[in-house]
Amino acid sequence: MPHQPKFPGKLIAFEGGEGGGKSTQIQRLAARLKTLGREVLASREPGGTPIGEQIRSILVHNAAGDEMCPEAEFLLFAASRAQHVREKIAPALARGVTVLCDRYMDSSAVYQGFARNLPADTVNSINRFAVANALPDFTLIMDVPVAVGLARVASRATPLPDRMERQTAAFFQKVRDGYLRLARERPRNTLVLDATLPADTLERQIWDALAPLLAP
Amino acid sequence: MPHQPKFPGKLIAFEGGEGGGKSTQIQRLAARLKTLGREVLASREPGGTPIGEQIRSILVHNAAGDEMCPEAEFLLFAASRAQHVREKIAPALARGVTVLCDRYMDSSAVYQGFARNLPADTVNSINRFAVANALPDFTLIMDVPVAVGLARVASRATPLPDRMERQTAAFFQKVRDGYLRLARERPRNTLVLDATLPADTLERQIWDALAPLLAP
Repeated sequence: MPHQPKFPGKLIAFEGGEGGGKSTQIQRLAARLKTLGREVLASREPGGTPIGEQIRSILVHNAAGDEMCPEAEFLLFAASRAQHVREKIAPALARGVTVLCDRYMDSSAVYQGFARNLPADTVNSINRFAVANALPDFTLIMDVPVAVGLARVASRATPLPDRMERQTAAFFQKVRDGYLRLARERPRNTLVLDATLPADTLERQIWDALAPLLAP
Repeated sequence: MPHQPKFPGKLIAFEGGEGGGKSTQIQRLAARLKTLGREVLASREPGGTPIGEQIRSILVHNAAGDEMCPEAEFLLFAASRAQHVREKIAPALARGVTVLCDRYMDSSAVYQGFARNLPADTVNSINRFAVANALPDFTLIMDVPVAVGLARVASRATPLPDRMERQTAAFFQKVRDGYLRLARERPRNTLVLDATLPADTLERQIWDALAPLLAP
């Protein structure tokens, strides 16, 4: 693809397994940025656009979901991501908006690549095709032991989608290991947070990590 | 991906622009093979599986379809194809069934690659990821001048889906040119048929082309 200049806006990805408090911290960071007068777009994957929500419903609610092959699953996530980037994320970044995304390309690298054994290089190249030049400026990994994360999720009003409910603890452990490995391989713009800490502490740590990047 | 042996069954792809008579010739070939006692699977893309049909409905009926980016469109076709291959095509080929597919990976190479300008090498590599070792043994391109094909389609009980209806004649000309180019690049196992000929003539030409491959 042709080289394109960096966007004026910054893209922050929130990643990690289930129950790591991603959406809480996105809300807090968005509120803080808004009080500073910054324009913020908070979005999520899969979904984020009308087409993406239709894809999400195939991924999440599909009665035949347990028969979906990992390749089709990944390509559906990638399709949702491609639309999300071109319809919302890239235009926002181009206007200088700070974009906070609940899951992004690392979720595919970890869930479909690491945990479901699709080849990492293929996942990476299809991810790059999907996002083009909308690469995250910084990735926050909300790390939590599998049992803690799943217990948190179980206490939610909205349970995990069926497809995720059916996964084993071994699968979620692979997801956690995958994220920690990504962070080791790419320490410069990725931070692992101990998501068992109080939300206020995490909010402060996230702010400290992002302030240099997001300072006006 | 790991090398896997060739399947005992043969995969025949029917390709070409709109109105080339693909489904008529698939029906005729399937009937002829069945009278010879051969097991045949006739399928179509996008679709072919319950998950694929859900994806097809996003591609075909989506009210927001005109806003779908080419990358998402291609990734949806690839997701449908990946599921189709693993759920139906590869298991049938493994049992020695002859599979006749109404559109397959060349449709993406031509519609999304050639006509919508996605990079050919990326389209090819994602196509290969989607189909793994279920490559066509032979491809029949039903070639028809754009005006003839569209006039035929206009007289059908079921019109073209909205998304296709909105395409210009220039788009369909690119599709035709793309198929002819593929056939020139890959003459060994691809045959272009003049789809303005009578159906009986085409049936005979197709049988002559395939008999060496499909002979017991």
